[in-house]
Amino acid sequence: MKKLTVIKIGGKVIDDSAALELFLKDLAKIEGSKILVHGGGKIATDFGQRLGIEPNYIDGRRITDAPTLELVTMVYAGLVNKRIVAGLQANGLNAIGLSGADANILPAVKRPVQNIDYGFVGDLDVTQVGVEQLSKFLDDGLTPVFCPLTHDQSGSLLNTNADTIASVLSSALSALFEVKLVYCFEQKGVLSDFTNQVVIPEIDSLSYQKLKEEKIINEGMIPKMDNAFDALRSGVQRVTIGHYTAVQSLTAGEAEGTVITL
Amino acid sequence: MKKLTVIKIGGKVIDDSAALELFLKDLAKIEGSKILVHGGGKIATDFGQRLGIEPNYIDGRRITDAPTLELVTMVYAGLVNKRIVAGLQANGLNAIGLSGADANILPAVKRPVQNIDYGFVGDLDVTQVGVEQLSKFLDDGLTPVFCPLTHDQSGSLLNTNADTIASVLSSALSALFEVKLVYCFEQKGVLSDFTNQVVIPEIDSLSYQKLKEEKIINEGMIPKMDNAFDALRSGVQRVTIGHYTAVQSLTAGEAEGTVITL
Repeated sequence: MKKLTVIKIGGKVIDDSAALELFLKDLAKIEGSKILVHGGGKIATDFGQRLGIEPNYIDGRRITDAPTLELVTMVYAGLVNKRIVAGLQANGLNAIGLSGADANILPAVKRPVQNIDYGFVGDLDVTQVGVEQLSKFLDDGLTPVFCPLTHDQSGSLLNTNADTIASVLSSALSALFEVKLVYCFEQKGVLSDFTNQVVIPEIDSLSYQKLKEEKIINEGMIPKMDNAFDALRSGVQRVTIGHYTAVQSLTAGEAEGTVITL
Repeated sequence: MKKLTVIKIGGKVIDDSAALELFLKDLAKIEGSKILVHGGGKIATDFGQRLGIEPNYIDGRRITDAPTLELVTMVYAGLVNKRIVAGLQANGLNAIGLSGADANILPAVKRPVQNIDYGFVGDLDVTQVGVEQLSKFLDDGLTPVFCPLTHDQSGSLLNTNADTIASVLSSALSALFEVKLVYCFEQKGVLSDFTNQVVIPEIDSLSYQKLKEEKIINEGMIPKMDNAFDALRSGVQRVTIGHYTAVQSLTAGEAEGTVITL
């Protein structure tokens, strides 16, 4: 079976152009088929302030209203995505930037309104991912670079969490590839002790429950962990979480970061 | 030989969402392989004002400085490109949005400084276009949608005129395809009489010289005409210029707009 690495990058590295440059250099050196999924960083918030687009919250949840959708389309699909693609090309990697609308790879459904109307937010269905087209891109030696936008197939783009996109892409492609999923961010892994930066080397579904009960794994990390377990249950071979400067050793499976197992 | 239509759309239709929607509906109905190249419209100017990015001119020529490059990357590659891609997908056309950095299809050279430093502006070389990859996309049934950005292969995006991109893509692909190039804009064609909206049905290189001498063809139209003649000299089969509402008949070669011949 062919091998594939799906790498998610988010958080501070997107906002720090020197760190991003180093990350892209490291990424370009990783051999074999790969897909990059990037988050939005704080750039969208900064441009939103400059444009006078106020963040819109309901019950503490960020809402994607129409001006926010315009903003994130500009920043995620335009500025951030093309900056990453041009940076990877400069390092000799043949990257192609994609939103979920491009080549219809990530059709989504606008999140149904229950208690909260999240606005232009898209929920994915792993069975609808355009795996054949993606597989052709990979066979052509291209490295797809996804921004966190999907579409409803009726003309509207939708905002979708980048961690979820990475998990859903990995799950869908595990039918055709042996997939490793690597979440890169600004921590060395999932930490048991933030002050002393102690990394938990391995978490399985049992220890995950305990860590949640003990509040060692907190709110921000829970959706990421849930995405990781979803991917493993869908046939993804390995999920690791670690620091973006360690992307090469995380991909190689060396003793870095946190390995998630079922 | 396989057939291909390259369509450039620019000007007011980009700024008018109702007109754009109708155009995309018409475009989706055109059979066979096609590529769309879009301009930027006035949206970039509007967002520039909101962001406090002042247009920078030297000797009446627009300069692409670093803040302007950020602005056009957001608006052209983000907002406008993805809006068009999502709109075409809604009409059943499998569009894929691209800048020239994506899949390295349009490598360019930053314009050398002679009298004026144009800043981040890219000049294209028809021999460097990624025709093999483009041809694969077309064979896969994809419709590439290009925004007017190229890259220098060293990590920087570059601003490049959309008319020129359409001409260069057409020229490069004429080695593999029988190419028709259609320039769509807000006029019915090249006009001999603006007040009475009289369209010149055909212009060849001889009549072009005369029309320029008589100042019937004026400044704004000259680069478009030069791009059209460049394309014909490089083997493009037919170039027409006409109104965006007539894209179907212009593509079909019916009596609409202005036909350019050598």
